Amino acid sequence: MRPNKIREIWKQGGAVANGWLATPAAFSAEVMAHCGWDSVTVDMQHGLIDYQVAVSQFQAISTTDVVPMVRVPWLDAGLIMKVLDAGAYGVICPMINNGNDARMFAHYASYPPLGTRSFGPVRASIYGGADYTDKANDEIIRMAMVETKEGLEKVDEIVNTDGIDAIYVGPNDLANALGQRPTLDTENEVVLRAFETIIKACRSAGKPVGLHNGSAAYAVRMIKMGFQLVTVQSDAGILKNAASSIVAEIKGGVAKLDTSSY
Amino acid sequence: MRPNKIREIWKQGGAVANGWLATPAAFSAEVMAHCGWDSVTVDMQHGLIDYQVAVSQFQAISTTDVVPMVRVPWLDAGLIMKVLDAGAYGVICPMINNGNDARMFAHYASYPPLGTRSFGPVRASIYGGADYTDKANDEIIRMAMVETKEGLEKVDEIVNTDGIDAIYVGPNDLANALGQRPTLDTENEVVLRAFETIIKACRSAGKPVGLHNGSAAYAVRMIKMGFQLVTVQSDAGILKNAASSIVAEIKGGVAKLDTSSY
Amino acid sequence: MRPNKIREIWKQGGAVANGWLATPAAFSAEVMAHCGWDSVTVDMQHGLIDYQVAVSQFQAISTTDVVPMVRVPWLDAGLIMKVLDAGAYGVICPMINNGNDARMFAHYASYPPLGTRSFGPVRASIYGGADYTDKANDEIIRMAMVETKEGLEKVDEIVNTDGIDAIYVGPNDLANALGQRPTLDTENEVVLRAFETIIKACRSAGKPVGLHNGSAAYAVRMIKMGFQLVTVQSDAGILKNAASSIVAEIKGGVAKLDTSSY
Amino acid sequence: MRPNKIREIWKQGGAVANGWLATPAAFSAEVMAHCGWDSVTVDMQHGLIDYQVAVSQFQAISTTDVVPMVRVPWLDAGLIMKVLDAGAYGVICPMINNGNDARMFAHYASYPPLGTRSFGPVRASIYGGADYTDKANDEIIRMAMVETKEGLEKVDEIVNTDGIDAIYVGPNDLANALGQRPTLDTENEVVLRAFETIIKACRSAGKPVGLHNGSAAYAVRMIKMGFQLVTVQSDAGILKNAASSIVAEIKGGVAKLDTSSY
Amino acid sequence: MRPNKIREIWKQGGAVANGWLATPAAFSAEVMAHCGWDSVTVDMQHGLIDYQVAVSQFQAISTTDVVPMVRVPWLDAGLIMKVLDAGAYGVICPMINNGNDARMFAHYASYPPLGTRSFGPVRASIYGGADYTDKANDEIIRMAMVETKEGLEKVDEIVNTDGIDAIYVGPNDLANALGQRPTLDTENEVVLRAFETIIKACRSAGKPVGLHNGSAAYAVRMIKMGFQLVTVQSDAGILKNAASSIVAEIKGGVAKLDTSSY
Amino acid sequence: MRPNKIREIWKQGGAVANGWLATPAAFSAEVMAHCGWDSVTVDMQHGLIDYQVAVSQFQAISTTDVVPMVRVPWLDAGLIMKVLDAGAYGVICPMINNGNDARMFAHYASYPPLGTRSFGPVRASIYGGADYTDKANDEIIRMAMVETKEGLEKVDEIVNTDGIDAIYVGPNDLANALGQRPTLDTENEVVLRAFETIIKACRSAGKPVGLHNGSAAYAVRMIKMGFQLVTVQSDAGILKNAASSIVAEIKGGVAKLDTSSY
Repeated sequence: MRPNKIREIWKQGGAVANGWLATPAAFSAEVMAHCGWDSVTVDMQHGLIDYQVAVSQFQAISTTDVVPMVRVPWLDAGLIMKVLDAGAYGVICPMINNGNDARMFAHYASYPPLGTRSFGPVRASIYGGADYTDKANDEIIRMAMVETKEGLEKVDEIVNTDGIDAIYVGPNDLANALGQRPTLDTENEVVLRAFETIIKACRSAGKPVGLHNGSAAYAVRMIKMGFQLVTVQSDAGILKNAASSIVAEIKGGVAKLDTSSY
Repeated sequence: MRPNKIREIWKQGGAVANGWLATPAAFSAEVMAHCGWDSVTVDMQHGLIDYQVAVSQFQAISTTDVVPMVRVPWLDAGLIMKVLDAGAYGVICPMINNGNDARMFAHYASYPPLGTRSFGPVRASIYGGADYTDKANDEIIRMAMVETKEGLEKVDEIVNTDGIDAIYVGPNDLANALGQRPTLDTENEVVLRAFETIIKACRSAGKPVGLHNGSAAYAVRMIKMGFQLVTVQSDAGILKNAASSIVAEIKGGVAKLDTSSY
Repeated sequence: MRPNKIREIWKQGGAVANGWLATPAAFSAEVMAHCGWDSVTVDMQHGLIDYQVAVSQFQAISTTDVVPMVRVPWLDAGLIMKVLDAGAYGVICPMINNGNDARMFAHYASYPPLGTRSFGPVRASIYGGADYTDKANDEIIRMAMVETKEGLEKVDEIVNTDGIDAIYVGPNDLANALGQRPTLDTENEVVLRAFETIIKACRSAGKPVGLHNGSAAYAVRMIKMGFQLVTVQSDAGILKNAASSIVAEIKGGVAKLDTSSY
Repeated sequence: MRPNKIREIWKQGGAVANGWLATPAAFSAEVMAHCGWDSVTVDMQHGLIDYQVAVSQFQAISTTDVVPMVRVPWLDAGLIMKVLDAGAYGVICPMINNGNDARMFAHYASYPPLGTRSFGPVRASIYGGADYTDKANDEIIRMAMVETKEGLEKVDEIVNTDGIDAIYVGPNDLANALGQRPTLDTENEVVLRAFETIIKACRSAGKPVGLHNGSAAYAVRMIKMGFQLVTVQSDAGILKNAASSIVAEIKGGVAKLDTSSY
Repeated sequence: MRPNKIREIWKQGGAVANGWLATPAAFSAEVMAHCGWDSVTVDMQHGLIDYQVAVSQFQAISTTDVVPMVRVPWLDAGLIMKVLDAGAYGVICPMINNGNDARMFAHYASYPPLGTRSFGPVRASIYGGADYTDKANDEIIRMAMVETKEGLEKVDEIVNTDGIDAIYVGPNDLANALGQRPTLDTENEVVLRAFETIIKACRSAGKPVGLHNGSAAYAVRMIKMGFQLVTVQSDAGILKNAASSIVAEIKGGVAKLDTSSY
Repeated sequence: MRPNKIREIWKQGGAVANGWLATPAAFSAEVMAHCGWDSVTVDMQHGLIDYQVAVSQFQAISTTDVVPMVRVPWLDAGLIMKVLDAGAYGVICPMINNGNDARMFAHYASYPPLGTRSFGPVRASIYGGADYTDKANDEIIRMAMVETKEGLEKVDEIVNTDGIDAIYVGPNDLANALGQRPTLDTENEVVLRAFETIIKACRSAGKPVGLHNGSAAYAVRMIKMGFQLVTVQSDAGILKNAASSIVAEIKGGVAKLDTSSY
């Protein structure tokens, strides 16, 4: 089976730079897969992306050796199995509140005897290789999101659940849940302390933890703080910011002109 | 009929900031339409976009008051009429070499008696209004691309063709045609002189001229030089640059760390 | 945040004329949005429409100031959050049987502290505005369908659930559930009495109630009876009826001819 | 090969009721195919429909025994052959101006020795049968549109071209071309005389002629006048009219109410 | 209502040859529907197929009199109702573990009073006929998959559940669940004994049972053993095997050549 | 620039096994790309495939090192440039009748100074590499189809045209054109002599020639006869044959049983 490069990076003590897709286009995925990210995640929760587009994005990412990941919209057995069969090498599941949620997630995403994933890796075995079903449980990454009050309180039982490989932190929902203003790249003390709690629990469990960020600078700081996977915005967000800056620069540049000579 | 804001900007002596779409997704169009551009052009020539996606992008742009434009892949009567019926308010046609090409383009894109456009503005009359067919010839913008050796030599007959509203310059093909290295934001003297030739011809004809650029700074400089419409890259290009910078900043930031403490 | 026109109509004591989409095409949505309806609902339950097409229809409706609504196929947390993130300004949820169902629905469709909706309004904040997350709970409309025997019996606890803004009545399922023949525009006494029961419960709770109808005449009668939102058929149903009439008129007209002279 | 029902109707001296598709959805095609039309035409010229959607509509129509037809956007060899390979049983080609245009159209749409259609009926032989290539030239209907000034003048050479099976009249473009106001269901004398000229030419050539109409009543009148195929509007047009009437009836019905008692 | 040919075959004591779709293309479905299968099943579980593509495949299958079936990804009420509304004449539901699962499945897939299926057969009544809702419970086939350890133990309560019409055996998951190596066309004694257990339970209940196979030869043997419906691989699997053989034959044939004379 | 493996095979005196796509699905392309073919060609002429699907198939093929090729529907400048920009590494153009057609094809498919291809390899430079525009003329393969009477007569001027890299023979159209029955794997003497004529012309010009075949056995024979690229059927054709055989085997196997014991 094609090895999961994320696991290799983590084994070597490195941090993963993870791209994020909200735009429903295979080409957007292919462009992102050529930007240097170690992995690219198809966001089926808040991104405007459903299953059929997600498959096209897995294919587009697979034109490179970047790792194709996905965030599913919910703890939904049918969909989790579908995205794995379609070749996702990592699944991020939102709103995991406790050990029970974590166990269900791990079960859906793992073959027996660890879980109850149904057999039929139609595209995954083409992408991963003929021995996919033998090794998938060991290569696929299952990341549980900790982003609710309950999830934060029970982060230990979540991260220590068999089959949960890592934690992913959604800072907006987490802030919301803690009664703080949701924002990326937060400086809010309450939220930053929650980050520390989660990092500590992950260190104890010997499992990595990732974070969604708003900028590269903050992402680097968070790696230094203890995160092993960082995402920055999404393709749509990056485009929006960069294009808006370009327009502003054009309009600003022209405004300063004396156009009376035109 | 809904007035064409590009014409209004030009009447007031202003320059148009034009966004450019290469990614086949309505959402990418909608995001770009919220970045401040005056118009957004669906590139059906070099962009990965065919008719059905183009329609979805016209719809996405039409959620705002940004002007929906299109570049067609070729001087193709059927397709030029189809994109107009779908609601494009401007058509850029590549590789116009002479007055004859220009006349054919103007004919395809104009109702009788000016041209031979067939009657049936199925979406255009919904977007533009019930009097669309009466006013379309006066509101729609037909931009001929001057980007070949012959086109440059015959820029006067092209720009003075009835029904041609403006010229659009493709700097890569133009450089290629002049035996120079193709690049955006060129400093090549031969190409810059060609720009001046085209601007002069357009001024004589009293018609505006646009240019494709690689950066906002160069675009501003080109407006000062005499262009009235500037495009900067494309959605895909902007994303690629911005995302690559973010990844480089992350990888650079981490490389400088002493990760031995992990 | 862009205000929800349905709320404004209701505040002024008016009734909402609501269009209904079963055909999976953005253009069908755009055509319907130009027919005068106050809102247009994408039917993801019985309509032939899944998420990706629904998004394209929200975009098409958003080319006008008609309110984009959606009926989800089921009380499904992931999908309810996805359609809201995609810009739906109202969600109709079928088969709400009791206060518990109603609470779950309200929770999924509302941000904390009212509910557990996850943060990430990728398209909704573009459509609704930058302050979307602050005001969404107050602008979005959550309509619970009462259409089962249990739902009818527990209509009071449903309509009085916090976060439920209105009730929508499915007359076919309701008739079925009451052992009556399912039909739109029913004259069945049992079903009409059920309508009255629901209207009364809604009046007590100070919340509006809507109904699916088969004709404009019946819809007007139902508004007089106390409904504040009326739907008539669907785009597909309207097309089927109107086109069938045209064909019948042609075939009838020709049949009466003496075609022997041809 | 599955016989072409349009030819059968014409042999028996009947007139064809032809539905028209502008909405890009297979389901819209399937609904129309269940309304009683003898044939349904996918309009790739003014309809919002490109090839891939057209194929899905041929499939949807083929769930019934209604004849699948298509109008291509232009006299385009590649596309004419593609829609035939996809199973269209009739092709309407716009803007045929003279015998030369007619010959090219007939050539592209016919196998040797009559024409130059390339061999490869990938879907057509599944739909039509294993002997498709032997009989296609005799079953497929090639309809040339007469709708320009030149076309009207040269209607005789067009209709007498080998391989042209019938004429289709576009009344809007024809009116435009004759300097008259374009409208369906015209009462304009100049246009009506042109209809008669075309009918007469077709009678002389022993070939049928069709017309696009705005209403069933006018279509019946035109059948009496001599047309053997009538279309009424399109799916989108029928929907727009019928839905707008419903909304108007609701709003009119409610306006007349005394709503003060609400 | 159009009768369900699978029921007719079973009434006559015959076995159903069932095709299987994993490729997301209506044309693949149409090709398969012309290969002689009695029914063709859209696999939404392991196939790369989501709802919108499934609808297009139901339409493609409906161009023939082959029975359109579907396997849903999970026991999901909303989706089961959606595929039925879209015209599926049979639903296979995976991972049915006990009588309770079976009852839920039967309920979702049946109209009252047998179940709780919501009323709105938008495409089903076009495909099946105007009396669809009266007869659907009797024509539609609900097949529960027995493929887990618990399912095998409780096969009697599953097959005897009201509204369950037949059982479908997934040999890979069943083998997995029994601690055996998953494979199609198994010769494993443990798995073959499980087949016999299931067949016996079905015989007692007077209900048919189907099996997924890897080859026609094994499928014939399984019919002799007592299965009444056999599937062989999927469209993608059949293509992969057949195309790989062709390539191997070419490469083998060429390798044996003395190419030095080229 | 990523080297073109077809050129490498030809340089070493080998023959290319070329797969062929008629089914509009990226997954079908991906499956075919894993069957051992050296190249896979997207057939936009007779296949049910238009541009947007073709792009998705180029992406799917690009998940492997199989060479992505395309057959365009016609000698269409705009489309030839679009498929190249989308990353096709070879273009097959049908119905090339003479040196003039060949020159136009070569021009459209080559950058200046050899041709007039417009600059903008949006996906091609991602797939091929940053130096794509410098090397594309030397790596891309332009194959002209010889399949008409005129084409056969002028095969020398076609194959000797600058920028034409190889010839592809369409045996069905060629047979048709020579008044013979169109078939793959022909034994017809007239057609076989035409093959020899074409092979001889290609040998003289030092350029390879390919053929479309119906079976591996015939393809091997044709390689021995002098062809350097062989295609066998298409994905749809291979599936149809293989699935039909499976069904026949099942039905044959069951028919031979004494089913009275059931």
